[in-house]
Amino acid sequence: MRYDIAIIGSGPAGISAAVNAKIRNKSIIIFGNEKLSQKLVLAPEINNYLGFYGITGSELKDKFKNHLDSMGIEITNQRINAVYAMGDYFVLMVNDISYEATAVIIATGVETKKPMKGEEKFLGKGVSYCATCDAPLYKGKDIAIIGENEEAIEDANFVEEMAGKLYYIPSNRKIEGLKEGIRIINSAPLEIIGDDHVNGVILRSGEIKVDAVFILKDSLSPKELVPGLETIDGHILVNRNLETNIKGLYAAGDCTGKPYQYMKSMGEGQTAALNAVSYLSKI
Amino acid sequence: MRYDIAIIGSGPAGISAAVNAKIRNKSIIIFGNEKLSQKLVLAPEINNYLGFYGITGSELKDKFKNHLDSMGIEITNQRINAVYAMGDYFVLMVNDISYEATAVIIATGVETKKPMKGEEKFLGKGVSYCATCDAPLYKGKDIAIIGENEEAIEDANFVEEMAGKLYYIPSNRKIEGLKEGIRIINSAPLEIIGDDHVNGVILRSGEIKVDAVFILKDSLSPKELVPGLETIDGHILVNRNLETNIKGLYAAGDCTGKPYQYMKSMGEGQTAALNAVSYLSKI
Repeated sequence: MRYDIAIIGSGPAGISAAVNAKIRNKSIIIFGNEKLSQKLVLAPEINNYLGFYGITGSELKDKFKNHLDSMGIEITNQRINAVYAMGDYFVLMVNDISYEATAVIIATGVETKKPMKGEEKFLGKGVSYCATCDAPLYKGKDIAIIGENEEAIEDANFVEEMAGKLYYIPSNRKIEGLKEGIRIINSAPLEIIGDDHVNGVILRSGEIKVDAVFILKDSLSPKELVPGLETIDGHILVNRNLETNIKGLYAAGDCTGKPYQYMKSMGEGQTAALNAVSYLSKI
Repeated sequence: MRYDIAIIGSGPAGISAAVNAKIRNKSIIIFGNEKLSQKLVLAPEINNYLGFYGITGSELKDKFKNHLDSMGIEITNQRINAVYAMGDYFVLMVNDISYEATAVIIATGVETKKPMKGEEKFLGKGVSYCATCDAPLYKGKDIAIIGENEEAIEDANFVEEMAGKLYYIPSNRKIEGLKEGIRIINSAPLEIIGDDHVNGVILRSGEIKVDAVFILKDSLSPKELVPGLETIDGHILVNRNLETNIKGLYAAGDCTGKPYQYMKSMGEGQTAALNAVSYLSKI
């Protein structure tokens, strides 16, 4: 099945895009999670979402969830690793599963944490954000995993089956459920080092020798997600129609730039969806 | 008193700008009316304002009004006729009263009705949108008023005191309260005619000879409101920061272009306000 519109991200921009595309009778799939947006859920008090003065983020999330439920919009709980433009459609990869859509809206938010020293330099040269995709390339080799997201433990257990030595650095402080053979490192990683290719990680205390470093975090950089996507200062380059440099590909919300605000994101999600609808009607 | 930010328009874009500017502790004045937006109030059902599935426009207006009340934001019930850029501040004119502000956000919506034949050609040459401003220029002359907004009757009664013959064309079908000496024309106006200057109006049945035509409608064209403002296809030209070609002047909502949607407008109002705040901190 090929969807009309695939939406990556379930924060304010993504759900606004979903609601507007659905109202226009388009077949949609939205990738994200049931909590919608961790950033939203944690907001203690919101005063600039018109209609809900002084609401908490968690309450607002529930209102949004009810809205989606009323419209029969379900969120597909999967993380897209890559989006490939195929001309008149897109392929979206979740590890080895693929989805197809005619138009795509990226609403992945923004990673406020800066990349680690060496992370960008060695991206594709030993540094990867997808353990399940790239572990087979390092069979029998030594690997370090920096675990930041919820799936990190599960991914580490999978990698353990094919790695030589596997080091696990629990940046999110969770180690429950980790297999026995995995070596837990309780020291902050400072820098990824190497020559042409990764050969180690410098820690606050000491250093480890590895051939690959998998950094498992929630949001990928846009360039990593979509090969060929143009960005500016770490944000996706869009015009006033929320079109990117790739035909049929739109972006909305924090990933397009500041201000990082709910209404700005929702307005962009809406505009992106309506322009995607009009794109669909033309092709 | 010079306000930090003046906001023209009390629709979704204007109130979102007001809320965000107020949260940033700026002194603001917002021009509009208590009903916020006639278009909003008349919407029978709204499904794409996240958090309020299936709400009516009138209910949503009440929620917005409560939000503004909670924040102590009052709407100044006046219609701005002109905005003049003075360098590092702006003067906003309401007939002969003037206001000052360091930054201005235009959120006047969009006039969906096309201009009348001859209206743009004779603008400033007998055609005017401000009866109280320009009536003194036509003392003793014959004038036609095309009444479209709520204040038209009151304005006509004022003009009657100085005009020669005064014709009143009630486009909004309201004539209650009109002074006795005013000649009511119950025929649709088709074209404004003249040579260098207006000399008449062609009606569906017949023609009247006049020296001026005052068209009294709610939204002025942006170019008419702000001399020197750049527009494109009838919309105010803005960049992604909602900046216009005039320093310190921002625009948000329907007046900047499609889609004409609440969330899009509110997101832009927010972005415009936050950029205006940052402009204020720089000067």
